[in-house]
Amino acid sequence: MTQDRHIKLGLILHGVGRTWDDWRHPDRDVRASTNIRFYRQQAQTAERGKFDFLFVADSLSINEKSSPHYLNRFEPLTILSALAASTEHIGLVGTLSVSYSEPFNVARQFASLDHISGGRAGWNVVTSWLGDTAANFSRTAHPPHHERYRIAAEHLAVVQGLWDSWEDDALVGDKEHGIFLDPAKLHRLDHAGPYFQVRGPLNIGRSPQGQPVIFQAGASEDGRDFAARHAEVVFCGPQDLEEAQTYYHDVKARAARLGREAGLPLILPGIAPIVGRTDADAERLYQELVGLTSLDTGLGFLSRAFSDHDFRAYDLDGPFPDVAAIGQQSNQSAAQRILARVRRGNLSIRQIARELATPRGDFVGGPQTVADALQRWVEQGGADGFNLFETLPGQLEAFVDLVVPILQERKLLRSDYEQTTLRGNLGLAYPVNRHAADKGKQAG
Amino acid sequence: MTQDRHIKLGLILHGVGRTWDDWRHPDRDVRASTNIRFYRQQAQTAERGKFDFLFVADSLSINEKSSPHYLNRFEPLTILSALAASTEHIGLVGTLSVSYSEPFNVARQFASLDHISGGRAGWNVVTSWLGDTAANFSRTAHPPHHERYRIAAEHLAVVQGLWDSWEDDALVGDKEHGIFLDPAKLHRLDHAGPYFQVRGPLNIGRSPQGQPVIFQAGASEDGRDFAARHAEVVFCGPQDLEEAQTYYHDVKARAARLGREAGLPLILPGIAPIVGRTDADAERLYQELVGLTSLDTGLGFLSRAFSDHDFRAYDLDGPFPDVAAIGQQSNQSAAQRILARVRRGNLSIRQIARELATPRGDFVGGPQTVADALQRWVEQGGADGFNLFETLPGQLEAFVDLVVPILQERKLLRSDYEQTTLRGNLGLAYPVNRHAADKGKQAG
Repeated sequence: MTQDRHIKLGLILHGVGRTWDDWRHPDRDVRASTNIRFYRQQAQTAERGKFDFLFVADSLSINEKSSPHYLNRFEPLTILSALAASTEHIGLVGTLSVSYSEPFNVARQFASLDHISGGRAGWNVVTSWLGDTAANFSRTAHPPHHERYRIAAEHLAVVQGLWDSWEDDALVGDKEHGIFLDPAKLHRLDHAGPYFQVRGPLNIGRSPQGQPVIFQAGASEDGRDFAARHAEVVFCGPQDLEEAQTYYHDVKARAARLGREAGLPLILPGIAPIVGRTDADAERLYQELVGLTSLDTGLGFLSRAFSDHDFRAYDLDGPFPDVAAIGQQSNQSAAQRILARVRRGNLSIRQIARELATPRGDFVGGPQTVADALQRWVEQGGADGFNLFETLPGQLEAFVDLVVPILQERKLLRSDYEQTTLRGNLGLAYPVNRHAADKGKQAG
Repeated sequence: MTQDRHIKLGLILHGVGRTWDDWRHPDRDVRASTNIRFYRQQAQTAERGKFDFLFVADSLSINEKSSPHYLNRFEPLTILSALAASTEHIGLVGTLSVSYSEPFNVARQFASLDHISGGRAGWNVVTSWLGDTAANFSRTAHPPHHERYRIAAEHLAVVQGLWDSWEDDALVGDKEHGIFLDPAKLHRLDHAGPYFQVRGPLNIGRSPQGQPVIFQAGASEDGRDFAARHAEVVFCGPQDLEEAQTYYHDVKARAARLGREAGLPLILPGIAPIVGRTDADAERLYQELVGLTSLDTGLGFLSRAFSDHDFRAYDLDGPFPDVAAIGQQSNQSAAQRILARVRRGNLSIRQIARELATPRGDFVGGPQTVADALQRWVEQGGADGFNLFETLPGQLEAFVDLVVPILQERKLLRSDYEQTTLRGNLGLAYPVNRHAADKGKQAG
């Protein structure tokens, strides 16, 4: 990859908000999660700020206790395709689960998005960690954690294989001789593995990026190995710079051991900046955010990470209970991170609940303060860039109008898009089609 | 439904063309099938002509012998979502196969499209008739014809059940009391059938149409029963008015026997008009179209309907061979239609091949001639409207500029959209949510 020192920036589009209570802000549209005008406005603002990509997360099951931003949301591929038509440069990255999708459908939808957007598609590969998702997909049980990553690896291999079905110049279009296609450049995949058997070829031609960009968010051991081996961009959720550095070093080292190109994968912590005109103004905004949150919400968040365990049964101000046996079926990495934070701060249930409901993080302050923190994280080996949550309404505009110009002045952010594709803007190489590569080897 | 006598109009978006050789026209972009600008332009032209909807067909397997318009194409949900952002009024209808999709994913994607487009989504339910599709989806065999319709009925029931997960007013959004959702108005489906087991609820709120519109194209006995029972709009492919009348009468009668509302389902034959400035000009354009076609193409088309049977083994100018045993695994209704046409015209292989490659149909002529034919089909009980293929490049514009004004003058076509939703413009009622209906019954 190129020696690009720019900070990579993504915007997480999440409708009503990041936390359970963000929707209660007076300026928040309670239907934002299915409001195309809101999404379009956010997308265009991020593009004005020269962000690399928009990111739409996903999940596949809800119940009446789910957080508002899970309850009601656009499906990622459809909203990203709509946003492709309303933007020109910004990347379009969506989550799609390998556990409940057919690789042929996944390959098509992202290739189609890549064509629609002129080369701006990215796939965030997830394995779906909520156990009750299986019940929405005619399955009796969710596959265990370790197996999910074996499925994921095979699923991804099939999708990437299908993306190479068409060599770059397979579509000939010779009208005079009636030759639409060079059949020697259209390839079956003939994949036959333990989980998937897929013949191919894909019924859509080679897309502008050759292969849409692969994103992933590995946190567990299996997840980090997967990220190091397969991802081009990795999302993570460190609580502070130290945790970010540890993760960054670990995943880059795993990737290096696997012989991957230096610099890969790019690592982008998720952050929730609160930008004020001054540090004091930002502090006031943070308190506004905390004011939206109830203790119930924090406890719900905690419970969710531990297989719906009820923490109200304990003294909320006493020591955190022994929950070693909990969380096997749930989000392992989230639970472990919470336990680490509790131990580090010797926190009560009440304290960790409030923190979970309204994480403060490192990025609360005036424009210079936030820009300094972003620069510090990147220069001190914690990040290649960031995946931004909007906290309060108007915060994306504040970031774009106040922080982006400072980063541009410091040459830490582009002043305009360098390339037409997401891959190009991220400094990732165009992938040579495996079939063309084979021929090259035979010729050489 | 309302007593709307307007002709319903759909435009089939098919990229490089309807037949195997349309792409060879000098003015046709050989990459039209993945060219977003071409799709956008077609969509906006159809909207200018006050068409009811755009339709994107689909198929799920190709090989190097497939027709150019099958080989390389956008995936329907993604391209329709992109077009939602580039249009304001026109409906957005896409094919999705029940044989190779999860009902939960289908329900979400169409509900999401319905939100994105402000209520313009329609689903064309198909069962996928190409036997080798199974090989792209980790299946060993394609289910037999009759079973596919049992799967389709259950799949559709699950999707429509999921669309009723949220009552219209389930999203409360009471910021003061922190009540996002009324949990009594969010419903699990708890479907447990022979093919699908789906708990729900769907993770996207009630969409503007309540339920996206159901399209279908039943031709076989099973298909017609399915259409009569479940479809709101039916596509068909009659060769002439007589065949259209027979089909129309048959499906409407089946629907009436099932107790469906009078007028349902709407029946829309697919037609391929060629509009000239005069009848003679249109004849010249038709010959231009025929000139693009090779005999090979016609034979390929024939072969495709009969399980890839090779008709070159016969005397092309002799009588049509006995193929009673062929076609069981393939498109039964297409094969039967071809055999009926061969018998009616006593055609040789060469003759039926040419006709298949360049069907002429009833809609070739000057503007008055084409408008008269459309009116005749509707007034004589052959159609409630039409699903249009563009034949030669520029033909959509010709239809919109020359034929549409005549239809409007005759009050056979709207001069502007009456409603904001596809359902509304087609004159279909807003479906009452089943859970609200249950409560209504209990209260009454």
